[in-house]
Amino acid sequence: MGRRELSERISFRNNAIGGVDIIMVDIEKANAEAINRINRGEPVLKDVKYRHEIFPELDKKTILHAGPPVKWDIMCGPLKGAIIGAIRFEGLAKTEVEAEQLAASGDITFLPNHDFDTVGPMTGITSYSMPVFVVENTSFGNLAYCMINEGLGKVMRFGANDDSVLERLAWIRDELAPAVKVTVAVMDGINLKVLLAKALAMGDEMHQRNIAGSAMFGREFFPALSKTVTDIAKLQRIIEFVAGNEQWFLNLAMAAGKATMDPVRGIEGSTVVTAMARNGTNFGIRVSGLGDQWFQAPVEQPRGLYFPGYSAEDANPDMGDSTIVETFGLGGMVMAAAPAVTQFIGATSVDEAVRYTREMGEITLGKSPHYVMPAMNFEGAPTGIDIRAVVETGILPIINTGIAHKEPGVGQVGAGLVSPPMKCFEDAVVAFAEKYGF
Amino acid sequence: MGRRELSERISFRNNAIGGVDIIMVDIEKANAEAINRINRGEPVLKDVKYRHEIFPELDKKTILHAGPPVKWDIMCGPLKGAIIGAIRFEGLAKTEVEAEQLAASGDITFLPNHDFDTVGPMTGITSYSMPVFVVENTSFGNLAYCMINEGLGKVMRFGANDDSVLERLAWIRDELAPAVKVTVAVMDGINLKVLLAKALAMGDEMHQRNIAGSAMFGREFFPALSKTVTDIAKLQRIIEFVAGNEQWFLNLAMAAGKATMDPVRGIEGSTVVTAMARNGTNFGIRVSGLGDQWFQAPVEQPRGLYFPGYSAEDANPDMGDSTIVETFGLGGMVMAAAPAVTQFIGATSVDEAVRYTREMGEITLGKSPHYVMPAMNFEGAPTGIDIRAVVETGILPIINTGIAHKEPGVGQVGAGLVSPPMKCFEDAVVAFAEKYGF
Repeated sequence: MGRRELSERISFRNNAIGGVDIIMVDIEKANAEAINRINRGEPVLKDVKYRHEIFPELDKKTILHAGPPVKWDIMCGPLKGAIIGAIRFEGLAKTEVEAEQLAASGDITFLPNHDFDTVGPMTGITSYSMPVFVVENTSFGNLAYCMINEGLGKVMRFGANDDSVLERLAWIRDELAPAVKVTVAVMDGINLKVLLAKALAMGDEMHQRNIAGSAMFGREFFPALSKTVTDIAKLQRIIEFVAGNEQWFLNLAMAAGKATMDPVRGIEGSTVVTAMARNGTNFGIRVSGLGDQWFQAPVEQPRGLYFPGYSAEDANPDMGDSTIVETFGLGGMVMAAAPAVTQFIGATSVDEAVRYTREMGEITLGKSPHYVMPAMNFEGAPTGIDIRAVVETGILPIINTGIAHKEPGVGQVGAGLVSPPMKCFEDAVVAFAEKYGF
Repeated sequence: MGRRELSERISFRNNAIGGVDIIMVDIEKANAEAINRINRGEPVLKDVKYRHEIFPELDKKTILHAGPPVKWDIMCGPLKGAIIGAIRFEGLAKTEVEAEQLAASGDITFLPNHDFDTVGPMTGITSYSMPVFVVENTSFGNLAYCMINEGLGKVMRFGANDDSVLERLAWIRDELAPAVKVTVAVMDGINLKVLLAKALAMGDEMHQRNIAGSAMFGREFFPALSKTVTDIAKLQRIIEFVAGNEQWFLNLAMAAGKATMDPVRGIEGSTVVTAMARNGTNFGIRVSGLGDQWFQAPVEQPRGLYFPGYSAEDANPDMGDSTIVETFGLGGMVMAAAPAVTQFIGATSVDEAVRYTREMGEITLGKSPHYVMPAMNFEGAPTGIDIRAVVETGILPIINTGIAHKEPGVGQVGAGLVSPPMKCFEDAVVAFAEKYGF
């Protein structure tokens, strides 16, 4: 039987097929529960902590990265570059050469962020001493983590690793993170669901456009910050850094997405995607009814616009955990709500953006009652990607992504559109059929 | 001849009518020049100054107000309330009773803001010691002024006048204004055209919704502010005040509008509206080819939504210079770009907002090349209201407005939609025909 036919057999759309009716009903019920849990998600920024405080069992020689698991020898350039930087950042090596030797020696353990309630954009490196946002889904009590956004340009998430990159990370660790921690505590948390909804109404899709979210975060954060940081030079540096970064809010949106989607994991019989993530070599998805198994295939090349001086030849393949944003219904899924982003990522028109969002409605099971799109007459974001619908319709989730240079150490060279490989969804459908006896 | 027929006779659409062809061509050329000047407008916030520094010839007993000229005895409640407050604020009277007596005595001179390059929202009071934003249209070198927004709630622009109102105004005068002045100087000005364009792309229409503009202003302003204000308690107060006011950007948008429209005044043969303003009693418009003459008619009642506890019975008629925002093509004119505002002002749907903006295209002569609406496929804002088109089509400019309580001292009670009276446009058409010999 072909995979599409298999998928249709699993579908409640064919529930007249004899003998499997009971299971059909279970899928519907399981997916309704999945959508219900997504909609009940209440992500709140509660704290900033160092990775070693949260996961003391992970030592300095354990580095968390974006996407599904991947071995050193098949890692892409930027991921290797970021790891070399992280090894130096943690003081495990002095030079790049030493760091690279250590990384290749087998003495460093590489693990996916997703296995530790964590997400990270692009290379997604989360090392021992790095601070992370702590976001609680207050409806379920689970926590999710994401490192603090480093800003644009030469940054570790795009594989850059020189001294300027490590100095910025040290400043984030030593000065910024403690200040954000104290301020968030004084504010008794920051409700990210409200900020996400506001920013969506202001033209952010929360993946390649976070300017409204970042500015709205600043409006709430700066008054409190100015009361907690009494050293004025320090206050200046922090305000300048946070206000100067249009993608500041991305990492908060990602942690919100992870916190929202984690309670959706492990619902028996559910065909809803709970994670999509890429390590620059492979794209992996996870499905609620199939636990923590990754369904992987080689990542694709984003099609997009390049910064002056760069072209598609410089581009690294698709990378990062930031697709958690699309997984919970934002990013490319709500492109219609962010028409200004279309010009940045190379979509041709607003009509195309609307078409993408309408298409996403065909592979999702719900509409968010909270994340609504004013430009679409306040319609809710398409939420809950169904692996069956993807395979049946042939429509893949659309992702708005940044593009890194393929060589380590260069950084971002563009932004564009990409989709997961269909194989991820087809394999998941097969595994689902096997597990549930279709 | 009826007024509509007269208007059609002036219209270039009827340029086959014998004997007036040469004048027809002049109108087209004059209006093209008007649109050109609007589009070339480059409003930049350059400074903050006290009214008495800019207009030393105006003494403490001269109070500037919104709209066309109006005498004390026919002023509406909130305007009287604000004037009573301003008289106390300037130290001319101790009590409200004394202030009211002085206002009614004939010893106070009331003049329109518009005659002094100034605009002010709602009551629009600009008194002797009040600080104003100084906005330069750098393409033409002209300056425009607008007081600093006081925030929401009980404020003078809505006619409130108790001690808390005056204390806030004193703080704005003594602490906030000097800090903004120094910061703007250090920043070498703030480009309002860029901020207006960005905010429009983020769902502000710049009249009843200024949240994006206010937040984007903060992103640029706070880093510089934290370097110019070294007293941390003062810095806290200023950040809290500016970040806490979603309408902070309104007064900057208004000054930008005034700075943009003033060079459009006095173009011989132009039928473009250069100002629309209300004093709570009358609505007045000015037309480029007719100089500074006001064409007035009694203001109408906004139709809108009321805050809890208030209804249409509490509402004051339409008031304020804030219609300068619509005059240069934003506010109600671009409602389609700000779908979220529709719920606040009582429009029924996004489709209705799109319909309004489309209709405004029928009474305007140009599309802004800079103020574009992403949700309308990046179409430019409808710019340059033509008195002939208004009279011929019967379509009136649509205005998004705040609603004040009709009694002095209460404040804002709602927000809604309103239009100028048709009589203003009809009378302007008659005057135009008389002046230009149709």
